[in-house]
Amino acid sequence: MSNSTASEVATGAPDGAGHSSGSAHPAPHGDLWSVDEHLADILAAVRPLEPIELQLLDAQGCVLVDDVTVPLSLPPFDNSSMDGYAVRVADVAGAGEEFPAVLRVVGDVAAGSSGDITVGAGEAARIMTGAPLPEGAEAVVPVEWTDGGLGGGPVGSMAPRSNGSEQASGEVRVHRPAEAGAHVRARGSDVQAGERALAAGTVLGPPQIALLASIGCGAVRVRPRPRVVVLSTGSELTQPGEELPEGHIYDSNSFSLTAAARDAGAIAYRVGAVVDDAETLRSTIEDQLIRADLLVTTGGVSVGAYDVVKEALEHVSDEDEAGSGIEFRKLAMQPGKPQGFGSIGPDHTPLLALPGNPVSSYVSFELFVRPAIRALMGLQEVRRPTVRATLRADRALTSPAGRRQFLRGVMGEGTVSPVGGAGSHLVAALARADALIVVPEDTTRVEPGTELDVVLLG
Amino acid sequence: MSNSTASEVATGAPDGAGHSSGSAHPAPHGDLWSVDEHLADILAAVRPLEPIELQLLDAQGCVLVDDVTVPLSLPPFDNSSMDGYAVRVADVAGAGEEFPAVLRVVGDVAAGSSGDITVGAGEAARIMTGAPLPEGAEAVVPVEWTDGGLGGGPVGSMAPRSNGSEQASGEVRVHRPAEAGAHVRARGSDVQAGERALAAGTVLGPPQIALLASIGCGAVRVRPRPRVVVLSTGSELTQPGEELPEGHIYDSNSFSLTAAARDAGAIAYRVGAVVDDAETLRSTIEDQLIRADLLVTTGGVSVGAYDVVKEALEHVSDEDEAGSGIEFRKLAMQPGKPQGFGSIGPDHTPLLALPGNPVSSYVSFELFVRPAIRALMGLQEVRRPTVRATLRADRALTSPAGRRQFLRGVMGEGTVSPVGGAGSHLVAALARADALIVVPEDTTRVEPGTELDVVLLG
Repeated sequence: MSNSTASEVATGAPDGAGHSSGSAHPAPHGDLWSVDEHLADILAAVRPLEPIELQLLDAQGCVLVDDVTVPLSLPPFDNSSMDGYAVRVADVAGAGEEFPAVLRVVGDVAAGSSGDITVGAGEAARIMTGAPLPEGAEAVVPVEWTDGGLGGGPVGSMAPRSNGSEQASGEVRVHRPAEAGAHVRARGSDVQAGERALAAGTVLGPPQIALLASIGCGAVRVRPRPRVVVLSTGSELTQPGEELPEGHIYDSNSFSLTAAARDAGAIAYRVGAVVDDAETLRSTIEDQLIRADLLVTTGGVSVGAYDVVKEALEHVSDEDEAGSGIEFRKLAMQPGKPQGFGSIGPDHTPLLALPGNPVSSYVSFELFVRPAIRALMGLQEVRRPTVRATLRADRALTSPAGRRQFLRGVMGEGTVSPVGGAGSHLVAALARADALIVVPEDTTRVEPGTELDVVLLG
Repeated sequence: MSNSTASEVATGAPDGAGHSSGSAHPAPHGDLWSVDEHLADILAAVRPLEPIELQLLDAQGCVLVDDVTVPLSLPPFDNSSMDGYAVRVADVAGAGEEFPAVLRVVGDVAAGSSGDITVGAGEAARIMTGAPLPEGAEAVVPVEWTDGGLGGGPVGSMAPRSNGSEQASGEVRVHRPAEAGAHVRARGSDVQAGERALAAGTVLGPPQIALLASIGCGAVRVRPRPRVVVLSTGSELTQPGEELPEGHIYDSNSFSLTAAARDAGAIAYRVGAVVDDAETLRSTIEDQLIRADLLVTTGGVSVGAYDVVKEALEHVSDEDEAGSGIEFRKLAMQPGKPQGFGSIGPDHTPLLALPGNPVSSYVSFELFVRPAIRALMGLQEVRRPTVRATLRADRALTSPAGRRQFLRGVMGEGTVSPVGGAGSHLVAALARADALIVVPEDTTRVEPGTELDVVLLG
């Protein structure tokens, strides 16, 4: 991406032109990029991962790469949909409660048996659900329409074979007639060989896995889940569970973004609290490249003297091959103004550098990282669903001009209510939110009752 | 649950009273239980799992057992929300573009530093985002409002400290005034020590994990994910990827239900294609008990001679302790009429025995197993959401009297369209569905345009 020289920043020279420092090309509108432009740049650069063959259950949630054609018709043979007796239609045509048809039982067809029984005139074969319809038979009468071969009235069930009470010989009385094909699932009535079972691009959930297994497909070519390494940076970060030194805060971003990456479908690895030292950060990132399809950092992307992510990664394009490099930008959004994006390392692994504030980083994840993860998976729908909702609030919302503001909200019936304020540190409010209220760039005030876009986080 | 004797079934005696065979108490309405009665019985018997303490990221998606109280206020100290200079309000009161306030820089406050700097009259301290506000300072002026200590006009950023261009001494020119508290995040403005951070029963998603990490909580007591063992039964079942012998079909239930159990939040284990032999099934189930919080079987629950699940498990209550036992029922539903439920083994592990047909077993899973899994997790919302939708179809739907029918459907805008027919073997149609259309028991015909309940599978 960027080809900027590090010297521009290293000298601390004022960027009087107002361009995002470290950027090779200027922002389209003054010194700020829009949320949509930034996302479009990310999605233009992130390609779906190369397909791999996975066992069926390992492919759950993944995207199918090829159309899957049905190799054999389902069901693969005419079979019974009931436990009962396989009969010829003519033999049971006049059967009734008082005058049952009496048929000679010639054998027993269990599910899984091969077709060595033939049903002739005046004959019946005991048959179980799923068992192949024997040669000569045209319909199945459920066991409840018969005496079960016991010589009495209609029965409720068959006796278990393993109890030794075989009913697969002798006579059976059938009390009702049956039409041709009754209680028979015809070969190919579910799918026909040669049909397309699933289209390329299908996401494999339980029903799709059921279909693939049914047609004998034990492994499939899919896009794998992306491996995402989440690194939080900051010398002030202490791990939860440890004692908090003066001036420190607990590291929360590495936890929340790892959880969010898993939620988005990724295999995520957490690297907590890299200290604010450019060399340490660079070598940590290099170490992590081996297990990363995507790198996400938090913190150190702003304009401060200790913003080591920016410092460390703006140098990358000088040392590495063409095509690598991280560009740092200011976006017309709140929270989440400073953002970095580009690629790094010999494989040009994509990297997103998010701001360090917990709410800013979470909102940035939702807007930029989640779509990137889903693009890597080959999904078509990479964004969260957005709906319209009516603002329900005690007073008007205010928003800075020229910024798209994302406020935490709770959904009601067609309404949304803000929780907490606009302050980007209100992680307690974030934990109660199930939506992001979007206040457009050109809107500085939103009265209660106004309809707005809302991003659903559920 | 059930105390039925096996002999009732073993003799194959007609159950003239019309009761579900193997049941100790009669069905409330003739010989059929309703869907709601069966689910109520399951939910009355399934208790949430015992809580365990898990590391934060291992608790993702789990339910919090106790209220969590905030041990320390957040932020834990007044800190800067910008990179800039910490100042006294009086010193910058009259500052403007032409006549900047000139302050002596007394030091550098990085995030994570402890408070050893004091800002006196006429002084400023360089300060980074998140760094504690030094003693004496009342506000922060962003670096963009200053000359960055370089003696020129306003700057866009600070020079990285590691480049050696220290700006933490000398003078800084401030071009704009600041009110008290400007760009300062006050201690406790997010949460106060002693407040309730999260209530018992909260599901831990990424934002809740962010909050817990922020307050230093590295491990939490939650209900664990249930371990679910899925066993498919049937001598006719062949594993996908292998060659299909005559009369056989591929095992799909063990795959689809394992995937569905994972989707519901469980840790699921697949045991494929146990042969139709009661002794083999019993010993397989005994072997699996050690890793199961819930057992799910498919197949062998109907009225056939080879229905070994029923045969094997109806004996259990005779041999084991009181409280164990599986009851087999017929439900007033289609598909999914035959169902078994109870508990087994020394720990009274719950077991659901589903019918073997792929669509029947999947629909049964959605209606009964998924709620059981979610009840084990301690979730309040155990059912899939149900919405009203208008039937969009070329012709009327028909449904058997006295059965609640579940048809596969695809949702539109407030509408639902059926896919495939009512046949319970249409797994290809299931793979295209995202909803179950519910036709009530007393409805035998539904005209296009009618409003219906629809269970959303998404």
